[in-house]
Amino acid sequence: MINDQPLADIVAALRSGAVTAEALTTSAVERHRTTGANLNAYKHWDESKALAQARAADAARDAGRDFGPLHGIPISVKDLYGVPGWPTFAGTKHRLPARFEAAGPVVQACLDQMGVVMGKTHTVELAFGGVGTNQHWGTPRNPWSPTVHRVPGGSSAGAGVSLCEGSALLALGTDTAGSVRIPASATGNVALKTTIGRWSTAGIVPLSPTLDTAGILTRTASDLAIAFAAIDPHIERATVLEPLPLDHLRLYAPGAPFWTDCSPGVAERTREAIDELTRRGAAPTDVTLPDLAPLQALFEQGALTAVQLYHFLRHQLPDAMRALDENVRLRLTDAGALPAAEYLDRRDRMAQAAVAANAALDDGALLVSPTVAITPPTLDELAPPGAYRRHNLLMLRNTSMPSLLGLCAVTVPVGLDEAGMPVGLQLAARGGDDVRLVRAALAVERALGTDRLRA
Amino acid sequence: MINDQPLADIVAALRSGAVTAEALTTSAVERHRTTGANLNAYKHWDESKALAQARAADAARDAGRDFGPLHGIPISVKDLYGVPGWPTFAGTKHRLPARFEAAGPVVQACLDQMGVVMGKTHTVELAFGGVGTNQHWGTPRNPWSPTVHRVPGGSSAGAGVSLCEGSALLALGTDTAGSVRIPASATGNVALKTTIGRWSTAGIVPLSPTLDTAGILTRTASDLAIAFAAIDPHIERATVLEPLPLDHLRLYAPGAPFWTDCSPGVAERTREAIDELTRRGAAPTDVTLPDLAPLQALFEQGALTAVQLYHFLRHQLPDAMRALDENVRLRLTDAGALPAAEYLDRRDRMAQAAVAANAALDDGALLVSPTVAITPPTLDELAPPGAYRRHNLLMLRNTSMPSLLGLCAVTVPVGLDEAGMPVGLQLAARGGDDVRLVRAALAVERALGTDRLRA
Repeated sequence: MINDQPLADIVAALRSGAVTAEALTTSAVERHRTTGANLNAYKHWDESKALAQARAADAARDAGRDFGPLHGIPISVKDLYGVPGWPTFAGTKHRLPARFEAAGPVVQACLDQMGVVMGKTHTVELAFGGVGTNQHWGTPRNPWSPTVHRVPGGSSAGAGVSLCEGSALLALGTDTAGSVRIPASATGNVALKTTIGRWSTAGIVPLSPTLDTAGILTRTASDLAIAFAAIDPHIERATVLEPLPLDHLRLYAPGAPFWTDCSPGVAERTREAIDELTRRGAAPTDVTLPDLAPLQALFEQGALTAVQLYHFLRHQLPDAMRALDENVRLRLTDAGALPAAEYLDRRDRMAQAAVAANAALDDGALLVSPTVAITPPTLDELAPPGAYRRHNLLMLRNTSMPSLLGLCAVTVPVGLDEAGMPVGLQLAARGGDDVRLVRAALAVERALGTDRLRA
Repeated sequence: MINDQPLADIVAALRSGAVTAEALTTSAVERHRTTGANLNAYKHWDESKALAQARAADAARDAGRDFGPLHGIPISVKDLYGVPGWPTFAGTKHRLPARFEAAGPVVQACLDQMGVVMGKTHTVELAFGGVGTNQHWGTPRNPWSPTVHRVPGGSSAGAGVSLCEGSALLALGTDTAGSVRIPASATGNVALKTTIGRWSTAGIVPLSPTLDTAGILTRTASDLAIAFAAIDPHIERATVLEPLPLDHLRLYAPGAPFWTDCSPGVAERTREAIDELTRRGAAPTDVTLPDLAPLQALFEQGALTAVQLYHFLRHQLPDAMRALDENVRLRLTDAGALPAAEYLDRRDRMAQAAVAANAALDDGALLVSPTVAITPPTLDELAPPGAYRRHNLLMLRNTSMPSLLGLCAVTVPVGLDEAGMPVGLQLAARGGDDVRLVRAALAVERALGTDRLRA
């Protein structure tokens, strides 16, 4: 099927006329109905609107126009982004005011290229959580666990699922402390968390203005390279990114906290991937990172995010604040009492750690670790009191570190854990080195192959 | 005497060789010893160092070099700026660590031009106050009140005094909520508070990173125009700024809070000046500012400044925090308890008011008001419990509004109040319009003359 081909081939087929956007979109719709029948990836799904966009893309193509690499490509959009003509709920109980439906630059880049918006994918309420659950709208199912309901990872909970079911070839997500990397890792996909500030977060419901980033999920690193170039405002849309030579990869695998409390198979698969990369020419290296223990403690206290979300809700969405998902509400309870002096302390500590980490990675070393320490839990495992909080912190732990340190980061699938669920390798680079990081992901994928998830 | 001439003439005399920097500096030193004998303008005064700089400036001149308009000009520097080779106390009890003695861009611009640093002028401790008192080092005397000790205005408490006594022709100050405008107004001088971000605040002990600005005090607007061009990084050093034509002045005199609780003569002199400008061609105009009452209330609560200073001291100067001037300490007492959510609210409210005010002034209208509402109090008037706080808020009230609104502002002397103390006219322009504002100050000075302070 055309939908299963690499994005590069699909882009070429659309350009040559070998396939139409309508055919591609029809096929994506069909996948949603069949493969995705019980997965619940989308909050808002509108196949007639999708097909109308596809036909418009074809009409433009017929008129000799090419609007870019995403012309006619099915795209799912996390329901935290505004998309004109689509409601925004941001995972809350009620539709948000119309100002949250305006397109920011990332969505606009997709629309400008006549990408086909398939629908808006589920998100953890206000993106405040890494597990992927949502009390209001249900939790998407992780397609890797067909019998028992395991979480898809969050907060971009429907994004990875949309790729798995085949209803989208590119998924827009957001990442404040792991929200594209976690769902990508949990569903066997690739994701990029961009450097803070590189992609505008305008037109996205904010969580932490300090740490929020826009990001993307794709099926493979090869797809990522195309989609990244198509969206990134700092390079040409048609830039073809080549894999970094493997012997340019300098990998630093820090110790604590990344490797502790891992589910069976997670650390093992990650180690094996790093070892294989090393055998093939990548160089283990050593860098001196700032002490991460205080940063981790700070993260577990809510960093700046809890009070920033509290502040946003109080002024912008007071109604939503009164109807929060319990797992969101509980973590906001104390936010209003945080002293400003402590807020400024945390902000400074984060900034200082980021300066130190970026200096440490200045010569190109990549920080490598498991993307997510644990097997995506089942809904039952999350039910006992305190279980959500514990799982949430563990799912976010490894991805939150590059976020707090001001790095950019990718995840690439490297195998299956003992529960048969996907394991991701996280690579993080100095802030601003997004291009080099995408090229590193290409190198990793080329070296390890894309068939590691087949049992 | 050469020291009494306009700065333009002095610059020309230095260039022509009609006067040497050494002669000019010697004369400035003599003024400090005679006129300034009891005024206490300087925390740190070093005439041998000043004369050495002057001789070096002359030697460079003799070698055919001209380093800029400030070449050989006596300059006083508020003891909040780092100047290499000079101690920084920032008004605290103990000398600060050496990192606070490094030059930032404003001081460096003076040094690069071979300006002559005469000494470091007294400041309210950590610049946190508008009255001009200092328990540790004494309060400079306001030269306009020879018999009774009236305050010189603050926080750049020695800056205006240094101009009055004739030991400096240019005084570097800083302005967070009025700290160059208040002392300039209180001592019959001119001052410019630059737009936030226009002049770097690096190398200056911070008070509020949100509102801090570097600024200058001069004897006249004509002097200001020369010194501004010499320091400002956005225009050529030698730029000759011309007065705005009077009929380009569109003056908006808002009502509350600027005109209430004024000491006898303050509102009257200001009104007379505005009326005279209007008679000569300036146009009264109307603009819609945001409601200033909540902004004033916010300011009286300490805005962001109190907690930002608290945060800075706790981490950077814990020793200074334990030995604070009582009038500073009392206003920091509650800062540690301010909730972060309230801090973020205040920040947003300030930002929103600034956006609205800048939009309202976008077509060039100038906000005009008395610079300081009250006669500079005597030390006796400040002694009763609560008196300092009350006077401090009233001295800061009118200048704090342009600061919170993100404007740039000047003060120009326009007469004497009923107590015989100078009254300043404050003009504030849209942020970024510093050049136009200096040209407006030139126009005002040309229209009103410079002899209004002669009884």
